[in-house]
Amino acid sequence: MKNEIKIFSPATVANVACGFDVLGFCLDNKGDEMVIRKVSEKGIRITHIEGYDLPFETAKNVAGVSALAMYEHAKPDCGFEIEIYKKIKPGSGIGSSAASAVGSVFGMNELLGKPYNKTQLTYFAMKGEVLASKSEHADNLAPALFGGFTLVKSTLPLDILQIPTPKELYATLIHPQIQVKTADAREILPKEVPLKDAIAQWANVGSLIHALHTSDYSLIHRSLQDIIVEPYRKQLIPYFDDVKYAALEAGALGCAISGSGPSIFALSKGKEVAEKVERAMQSMYSKTDIEYNTFVSQINTQGIKIL
Amino acid sequence: MKNEIKIFSPATVANVACGFDVLGFCLDNKGDEMVIRKVSEKGIRITHIEGYDLPFETAKNVAGVSALAMYEHAKPDCGFEIEIYKKIKPGSGIGSSAASAVGSVFGMNELLGKPYNKTQLTYFAMKGEVLASKSEHADNLAPALFGGFTLVKSTLPLDILQIPTPKELYATLIHPQIQVKTADAREILPKEVPLKDAIAQWANVGSLIHALHTSDYSLIHRSLQDIIVEPYRKQLIPYFDDVKYAALEAGALGCAISGSGPSIFALSKGKEVAEKVERAMQSMYSKTDIEYNTFVSQINTQGIKIL
Repeated sequence: MKNEIKIFSPATVANVACGFDVLGFCLDNKGDEMVIRKVSEKGIRITHIEGYDLPFETAKNVAGVSALAMYEHAKPDCGFEIEIYKKIKPGSGIGSSAASAVGSVFGMNELLGKPYNKTQLTYFAMKGEVLASKSEHADNLAPALFGGFTLVKSTLPLDILQIPTPKELYATLIHPQIQVKTADAREILPKEVPLKDAIAQWANVGSLIHALHTSDYSLIHRSLQDIIVEPYRKQLIPYFDDVKYAALEAGALGCAISGSGPSIFALSKGKEVAEKVERAMQSMYSKTDIEYNTFVSQINTQGIKIL
Repeated sequence: MKNEIKIFSPATVANVACGFDVLGFCLDNKGDEMVIRKVSEKGIRITHIEGYDLPFETAKNVAGVSALAMYEHAKPDCGFEIEIYKKIKPGSGIGSSAASAVGSVFGMNELLGKPYNKTQLTYFAMKGEVLASKSEHADNLAPALFGGFTLVKSTLPLDILQIPTPKELYATLIHPQIQVKTADAREILPKEVPLKDAIAQWANVGSLIHALHTSDYSLIHRSLQDIIVEPYRKQLIPYFDDVKYAALEAGALGCAISGSGPSIFALSKGKEVAEKVERAMQSMYSKTDIEYNTFVSQINTQGIKIL
C-alpha cells in the first residue's frame, strides 16, 4: 500500500438557486491539491501550506479538524502529514473550506485501505465545516466527495442523494473580489418565510430534480429561481442583478449566488454558451471598480480524485 | 365522429405529504362516470345527476362551470348535455370537484376532435375548482387528466410535469365520514413558516421526485414527510395520528392527509402490504364512533379515460 497520495479536491457550488441548504454541484477545473502522507509518528501535522495564508495548527485548520475527527475515530497505528496547495480562495463562495475538509479525510481513507464510505467521510468533513462557518452543513461537502449534483436530504442522519448530470451542462463562475462572511450571509436571512414563497421554492426544487433526470434544459431554466434567499443575500453582492441580467441575456439557463457568495454562478447548455456568458459577466463587471475573476467549468461528475 | 361519450374521471390525492399545493397522484378504482353528449341546441345543460345531491344549474355546478369556460373559448356550433354519475363523495378530500371539473372538458374536447391539449383543459377545469374551493389550484386536476404522479410547477402559466410511477406502488385510502371544508383547511394554515422547516420540506420534495425516478421505495418512505401542513390540518381529523401510526406499523411507506382531508392516504410497496395497511386502518377506526370507508388502489398512470 502507498504511503503518500496526491489528490485534487474540487470547488463546488452550493444551493443552486432554488435548493438552499440542500443542493450542490461539483466543478471540474478549479480545486485544491493536497498531499497526504502516512508516517510512523502518531498525530496529524500540517507540514506545508501554499497559495493562501492559513493556520498550520491542526485544530485551527479546516483540513486539520476534519482529519482529527477521522483520526480519533479510526485510531490507526500511524500518523499523517498534510500538505495543502490551496487554489480556491477562502471566502470566495465556491466551497473552499469544503475542499480542505474533504481532502484530508479522503486522502487518509485511501492510505488506510478505505475503511470508510463517502457518507462516513462526510461526517468527519462536517467537523471541518463547523470551524469555517459555525454550522454543520454538507451542501458543499457532498458534491466535492460524490461529484455531479447532490441533494443532502438530511444531515442528521446524513442522507445524500446523487442526482444525474445532463451531459451538456456547463458552469460559469465570476468571483467579485469582495468579502462576504458565511456567518453574515446567514444572519441576513429571515427566520420565517411566506408559505406561498416556500411552496414556489419546493415546486422549483422538485422540477429541477425532474429536469436533471430527464436532461430537460428548458425546465432547468424554468427551475433555477430563488425567491427565498436571493432577495436578501444579493444586497451583499454589488451589481448582482446586473450580472444576472447579463448572464441570462447571453443565454444562460440560470444565474444565482454560489453558496453564500460573493461568487455568482450561471449554468448553460454547452461550452460555447457558457463562454459567451463568461464574456458577458466580464463585460458587465469591468465597468465597475471591483476586481473579479471568472472561469468556465464542466460539471465534475467524479468529484474528488487521486492525481 | 361520435356524438356521445362515456368517461371515467378518477379520484386523486393532492399534496402527497411533502408536496403541499404542487404534487398529486391519480387513483385507479375510484372515480366518477360521466356521459357527455353533443347536441344541436347551443349551451351547456346538466341533464342527469346520480349519486350525490348537486346543483343542476350549469353556473353552480363544478362540471358546468369548467364546461362553460371551455365552451366560451371554443365557441362551437353546437351544445352539450352532461350526465353525472357521481361516485366520489363531495368533500371527501380525494378530488371530487376535480373529477367533475375535468370530466366535462375532457369529454367535450373528445367530441370536438381534440382541439385542446391537456394543459389547456386544465386551465378550463381550474375555473370549476374556483367554484368548489375558492382557489385556482391544479394539484388534483393535473393527476386526474395526466395520470400517475404530477408536479404542478406553477399555475400561472400552467407548468405541469409528469413524474414516473414505480410499478409496485399502491395506495390505501380511508375516508372518515366527517366534514372538512377546503376553505377551513386553508384558513388554519399559517401565512409564514420557519425557514428551517421549509428547507426540510423542499429537501423532501426533491428526494421524493428522485425516488419516483429511481423506484427507490426506501427513499419514498424517507421522503413522505410533511412538517409544514400536517401539524395544523391534522387537528381537523380525529384520530389522524393513530391511523398514521397503524398504517406505518403495518408496513406503509408513508401516510398523510389526502388533499385537505378528511381522507387519509398511505402508499405501500405491493398490493399485499396496501391491503394489510387497509386492515390496520379499519381496525383502528372501528374502535371509534366515526363511520368510515376504505379502499386500495393501484396508481392510475393513464388518468381520465373513455369507457
